[in-house]
Order: sequence, then structure tokens, then C-alpha cells
Amino acid sequence: MGIQRLKVVLAEGKGYDIRVGAGVLAGLGGHLREVTRSAGASPAAAAPAAAEAATEVVAEAATKAVVITDSNVGPLYLDAVRASLSEAGFEAFDLTIPAGEGSKNLAVATELWEALALLGIGRGDLVVGLGGGVVCDLAGFVASTYMRGIACALVPTSLLAMVDASIGGKTAVNLAGGKNLVGTFRQPVYVAVDIEALATLPAAEWENGFAELAKSALVDGGGFYRWLVENAVGLCAHDEAVVQQAIVQALTFKARVVASDELEAGPRECLNYGHTFAHALEALSGYTLSHGRAVAEGMRFAARLGTEAATVMGELVNEQDGLIVSLGIEPVRESYGADELFQQLYADKKVRGGELRFVFVCEPGEWEVAAVDPDLVKIYLIYWEQAKVAATAAAAAAAAAE
Amino acid sequence: MGIQRLKVVLAEGKGYDIRVGAGVLAGLGGHLREVTRSAGASPAAAAPAAAEAATEVVAEAATKAVVITDSNVGPLYLDAVRASLSEAGFEAFDLTIPAGEGSKNLAVATELWEALALLGIGRGDLVVGLGGGVVCDLAGFVASTYMRGIACALVPTSLLAMVDASIGGKTAVNLAGGKNLVGTFRQPVYVAVDIEALATLPAAEWENGFAELAKSALVDGGGFYRWLVENAVGLCAHDEAVVQQAIVQALTFKARVVASDELEAGPRECLNYGHTFAHALEALSGYTLSHGRAVAEGMRFAARLGTEAATVMGELVNEQDGLIVSLGIEPVRESYGADELFQQLYADKKVRGGELRFVFVCEPGEWEVAAVDPDLVKIYLIYWEQAKVAATAAAAAAAAAE
Repeated sequence: MGIQRLKVVLAEGKGYDIRVGAGVLAGLGGHLREVTRSAGASPAAAAPAAAEAATEVVAEAATKAVVITDSNVGPLYLDAVRASLSEAGFEAFDLTIPAGEGSKNLAVATELWEALALLGIGRGDLVVGLGGGVVCDLAGFVASTYMRGIACALVPTSLLAMVDASIGGKTAVNLAGGKNLVGTFRQPVYVAVDIEALATLPAAEWENGFAELAKSALVDGGGFYRWLVENAVGLCAHDEAVVQQAIVQALTFKARVVASDELEAGPRECLNYGHTFAHALEALSGYTLSHGRAVAEGMRFAARLGTEAATVMGELVNEQDGLIVSLGIEPVRESYGADELFQQLYADKKVRGGELRFVFVCEPGEWEVAAVDPDLVKIYLIYWEQAKVAATAAAAAAAAAE
Repeated sequence: MGIQRLKVVLAEGKGYDIRVGAGVLAGLGGHLREVTRSAGASPAAAAPAAAEAATEVVAEAATKAVVITDSNVGPLYLDAVRASLSEAGFEAFDLTIPAGEGSKNLAVATELWEALALLGIGRGDLVVGLGGGVVCDLAGFVASTYMRGIACALVPTSLLAMVDASIGGKTAVNLAGGKNLVGTFRQPVYVAVDIEALATLPAAEWENGFAELAKSALVDGGGFYRWLVENAVGLCAHDEAVVQQAIVQALTFKARVVASDELEAGPRECLNYGHTFAHALEALSGYTLSHGRAVAEGMRFAARLGTEAATVMGELVNEQDGLIVSLGIEPVRESYGADELFQQLYADKKVRGGELRFVFVCEPGEWEVAAVDPDLVKIYLIYWEQAKVAATAAAAAAAAAE
């Protein structure tokens, strides 16, 4: 398919490139060299009043690049990334964190900040996040706050990070009090999506990416939605051309949404489709539940609730169920009590002024946000719990019969 | 003098008010109620595409306000601040940190973030920083990153914080590896400068504020500089009208500079006059040296270096020395080795591409930034060290003679 190039367009003529394709990683250093040169030049253009200061800024191209990666991804791709950076003239360093969500906290962030200071990283230098969602969110946060913000490039290596965490500029770490509660809005300077990295992706990780693709396609509607329905088989077979096309469509959609609403003031809320309920499930599972399954379950829940709380078409419920099944996303096996779920929903950071708000997809491409009567939410939570209990009983009976 | 009102104008029609005067604190809650209402409305204006979402945002006014203060300032002003917030309909909370620079770190920031989560603070709520520079920088940082940024108002209680930390949007915490190395650019929503708070200001703190006033007046030049020279006596007597006028002029100057360069890409560098050398002195003292004395010393050093490295007039050296003395700012008593100072200068985060850059005031109101030949810097550091050694010897001889 060759390498495809997308652009995220932001306010005031800013923006950044995303390159998608096999082998994009090898060109990382060279492309970053261009990006940091032009980024170094732009403050000068914005500050004509201080000619001396401006001239100095132009001379200052990034010279050090610190790759932040984790203990799973580092052994696979760190050498290639460092080689590409060194060839392009960067002085390359790397910092490796333990793999997993457990690293996405302020203790690890503090270690990374101190390490950057120890390496003598300055304002003109660069961080490169190499890994899945945890690394992208954490490296982005650390870079966005070190010296009040240095440049950060991202090399997502999971399908989920490729279509979600790597673009949009939402950086984050977790608190004991909740996920993603500390973070910034800060766009990367470049995103390299090398689909060859998916060759080493564990099976469970594919499911996480597929759920995000399903969400994007449902919110986007039109061509993307129909394409996904028709290409679910190719995706499940990990057909490289199909996977790349799915990523490009999801990124095109997300780039458009982010461009219209960088700071999540309005339209960007559509990206949270399925996520309100998913976050509650994940929290109750102690974050052992896979994000993809939780989001798919959240979409199912929203669709059903929306037939009464919004104008979701009954047909959408079935179509969406069909798409989720055809992508091989397993249902959530565990059941949680309706009361627990209700309390957890209220703890979400998207709860505004005590209102429970949900994103609803009424039909593919048509979405709305609505505050829902808490009593109605409770009723649908009871339906959900009953359905899970019944499914668990049925599965147990089937297992016993074998 | 009554209450004076300034406005910091930022890009895209944004900005915030500063009120300066005796008793401003009593009106804090009422003013914040207005500010949070209009802030709630502005994302809606920016997002016409999502009518439903926008309507929700308007309805969401800040309801909780968390005052962050320290163990010195809290006992003096917390009750008044909480009362003002409660009267205006906010649900008021407070978090108190130990007073002093030692609290400006990531461990304390983490405690504050967790406390906000525990209090159930949401995106529409508010942080109020009540205290000196440490509290303003830390509260600003915590608010700017909690849920990717919630509103923060500042109530500076030291003269230095009133003219410096409270406006400009530079938030920060310290690392083991250096001061202010982690932070964000994030403007407050409102700043209340109540000069009655200065009644409890320790003597050493006045010196810190005066050094910042001297710096601002020298960079600004014109009326402000002449006014400061003529009113040094009134300032030293803590004449309330003179102090208020000094604050208003310094804030007017800084607001203009910040408006022209919110992210410190160019013109804002002028605010670092005297600070490159000051930071090196402070670091070598283990941060026991007062910031004001260090900045005054840095201005003296820059003026002398600038007669050779830039086009600083010899007259400026003497005029500036006179102003510093007339404001009662004591010279730095300690001496540090030229070699140590040189190494410390290189560790500053403003060193770009290995260049040592200084801000020079050539005459009041005329400033420039220049990269200076390291050998020339070394020579002037040796001059500085020799002068300090001689002054110390002279002082010791005088003391022995008494």
C-alpha cells in the first residue's frame, strides 16, 4: 500500500504529520530532523519584535532525542529507532519503564523527569514515545511538562495506540483516585505508525484496537462504517492492506474531530461513545478487564439505553451487535451489580454538575450527547446485570452438559 | 487609592482581570462567580457545531472551590477567603501545605492531586492559590494538570508574588535536578492583589519584591523607571499608596510583555534580566540565598558584563547600583568561586544549544539578548569573585576595628 501521509490541522496554522505504512519507522530520524528545524523557526516568526532573540531561536535545532519505551516494546524496536535517530544526527538516549498500566503513575513520571534533567535535556530537545497507550500517554505528559513543554514525537506500536492514544494530544497519568486524572492537552510534533510493528502484537491487543475502530466507524458513519462492516473478515485475518486502510480511516476521522475541538469543549465528546460505561466496568474490575471489551460493552449499553433516553433506532442496536461480533470482540464475562455500576458512573470525570451524560449514536454518523434521568440509567443497569447473570448461567449449563 | 483593575489580554479574545487595592480579598467570591460563569460559556461559543453539548456547558458553573494555601498564610487569610467564597455560593474546601520552597515538589503536588480527586473536584470546579510564589506556582501547576486543566485563581500575599508569580501563567515545581524544571504555561482566570495582606509580610520578603520592581522598571524604562527612582523612599517606608502604585505599574508592564509572548518564544525573555546569574547564585547557596538579593546581584553582574559583551552604557551600571541601594536591597555577602559559578550557569534551562545567553539592559527601557563568549563570562566571574572577597575582607577588618 505504500506509505500514507495525513495531516492534523490545528489552530493558528499549526499542525503535525502522521505517516502510516510498513517501514515508516526507518525514516523517523530524518523526518524529525525536518520537523524540529521548522518548529525551531516558528517562534521567531511569531516574535518579530525581538530580532536578536528570534535569530538565536532559529539556530537552535533539536540535538538530543530521548526515547521512552517499555520493557516489552524496547527489546523489539528500540535499536531500530535509536539507529534512525543517530543517522539523522540526533544524540540518542533511551529510558525504559516496566510494561503495563501500573507504570502510568506519578512515581514513574517523576523518575522520567529527573532522568531528563540528569541527561541535560534542554528546551530544544525531543522526547520520542515508543510503545502502546501507556507509553504514549505517559511520554506525552512528561514531555509536555518538562521545562513547561518540550517536543514529543510518538511511535505507537499497538493497534489501539495507533488509532487512539497517538493522536489528539490528550496526555495522562493515573491517580490512586482514578484513571487519567492528571494530564495535559498537548499535541505531538509527529506520529509514525509503522504497521510492521503489529506483527508482534498479542491477540488480546487486537481486540482493543478493533473496539476503537468500531466506535470510530459508528460515530463517523458513511463510507468508513460500511467499509468496516464489509472488511471485518480481512481485519480479523490481519490482512496488512486492510489493517492499514482501517488505521488511515480511523485517523482521518479522529484528526478531523480533534481539529474542530482541540481542548474537548464540545464536538470531541463524540469520541467518548461507549466510554462512560466502559470506564465504570474497568474500574470495578480493578482494571483487569480489557479496554476493548469494556468499550464494546459500553457501546452495547449506550445503544439500548438510547432507544429510550435518546433517539437511537432499534436497528442500530442489532447492527452494532453484529459488527462487534464480526470483529471477534468477546463479550464481558463478569457481571457487576447495578448499584455498584451506578455509583461508579457518578465518579467519572465526565459527570458535569452531578448530571449523568452519555454519548449516543442514533444511526451510523449521527450522534448526540444527552443528560439521562438517573432512574432510567438504573433500570438499564438492572437489565444489563440480569442479562449477564443469565448468560453466565447459560454458559455454565453448557459447560456442565459437555 | 481605591481598587484598580487591570486586564491581561491574550490571544483569541481571551484574558483575565487583576484587581489591586486594599480589601480586594472580600470581593473574591463574587468576582469569581462572574468569571466562572463567563468561562463556562466560552467553550460553547467556540463549538457551534454541537448545540447540545454547548448548552450543557453553559449550565455548568463552578460550584466547588478548593483553596490551596500554606501553614504561614492560612492562619492569617484563609477564613476571610473561605467566607467570601461561601457567600458567593461556592462550596469551599481548603488544603494547606507546609510553608517554604521545600513544598514545591512532586510529592506535595501528588498529595494535592489525590486530595482534589478525593473531594470529587470536577472539570467545572476551581482552585484558588492563596500565598506567596511557592503556593502560586504549585497551585497553578496542580490546577493546570488536574483533569487536563481546571480553572485557577490566585491571591498572592507576598510583594514578589503580587508583581511576578501571580501573572504570566508560568506554573512550576522543582526537581532534585533543578528548580522549576516541571511546569506548564497556563494563565489564571483571575488575580486578586489585596495590599492589606502586605501588613503581615516579613522584612526579608519586601527585599524580594523590591528587586523584582527594580528589574521591571529598568526593562520598562520611561515613566516607571523615573517614578521608582523618585519613590524609593516611600516604598521603603511601606507607604500604602506608593506600594499600590508600584504594583500597578509593574503589573501593567508584565501584562503587556506576557500578552505579546504568552509562551516565552521571544520578547518575554526580557523578564529574565538578572536571573541567569541569580539562578546560579541561588543554586550554589543551596537555595538559602534570598531571591531578591540574588536578582539584584545578577543585574549588577549583567550590567558590568554588558559594557563589554553588549552596548550597556557605563552610566547604567552606576544608576542601577544607586537604585538597588536606595531600595535597601542588601548585597550578597557570600562569595562563590568563578569556576563553580561558570559550571552552574551552564546548567540553567535557558542555555540553548550550549550557548550562554544574557539579557542586557543597555539603558532604562532598552534591552537586548546576546550570546556571550564563555571566556569573557569567565573573566567577569573572576572580577565578581575578587570584588566579593575584597568586600568580605573589608567588612571583617571594620568589624575587628570596632
